[in-house]
Amino acid sequence: MPSEKVMKQALQAYIDAFNRSDAEAVIALYADDATVEDPVGKDVLVGKERIAAFYRMAIGTGAKLALAAPIRASHGNSAAMAFDVQLNMPQGKALIRVIDVMTFDDEGRFSSMRAFWGPSDMEML
Amino acid sequence: MPSEKVMKQALQAYIDAFNRSDAEAVIALYADDATVEDPVGKDVLVGKERIAAFYRMAIGTGAKLALAAPIRASHGNSAAMAFDVQLNMPQGKALIRVIDVMTFDDEGRFSSMRAFWGPSDMEML
Repeated sequence: MPSEKVMKQALQAYIDAFNRSDAEAVIALYADDATVEDPVGKDVLVGKERIAAFYRMAIGTGAKLALAAPIRASHGNSAAMAFDVQLNMPQGKALIRVIDVMTFDDEGRFSSMRAFWGPSDMEML
Repeated sequence: MPSEKVMKQALQAYIDAFNRSDAEAVIALYADDATVEDPVGKDVLVGKERIAAFYRMAIGTGAKLALAAPIRASHGNSAAMAFDVQLNMPQGKALIRVIDVMTFDDEGRFSSMRAFWGPSDMEML
């Protein structure tokens, strides 16, 4: 099981890579057989190919992430963080308030990501 | 499935009841067969009797909760929130940074709670 320090560094690396539009560095944080559920309650993406397509698209929109509070670890193989997504939409700038929960494999890669946000967490700026 | 509004109101009710030391109101938010994993990675409490004992103890310590960011919902039956726990310990005041994820049953009660925090999320004030 990865240490709390390793897990928190991976979540910070995710934010940093996303914000420098480095999709490949984000994708490299995931295990090959990882899953992504973003948003929670919709389809689960299974495997690195689908996850890679998701991040190339998301980062291509110019979205940026800002932590809303310090990253949390756990007593297990999970960590979580609250952040805001700043979006550029055809209608203007928007914001989505999100909490991500990641689980880790023994090598410190994400085995799953779940993004908690609903329509009520989105607002036009 | 409960609405986003119902789920967010339940999480806010949890914070408010906890902070007025109303353990019975916190317990009433849970379904009879609910589970609590606090912290994630340790034992899972199953059923309302064990959950009730947990909250009577926790609230009895005088701990208080403060949201660190707005409550998040989801597109499913889950909601999440980042908050800080203010603790009174024999050694002095302390703080734990936590993210709670709740799932809901169809009646809008918590069917599960998972609290993400590790030793590195705790500090003496």
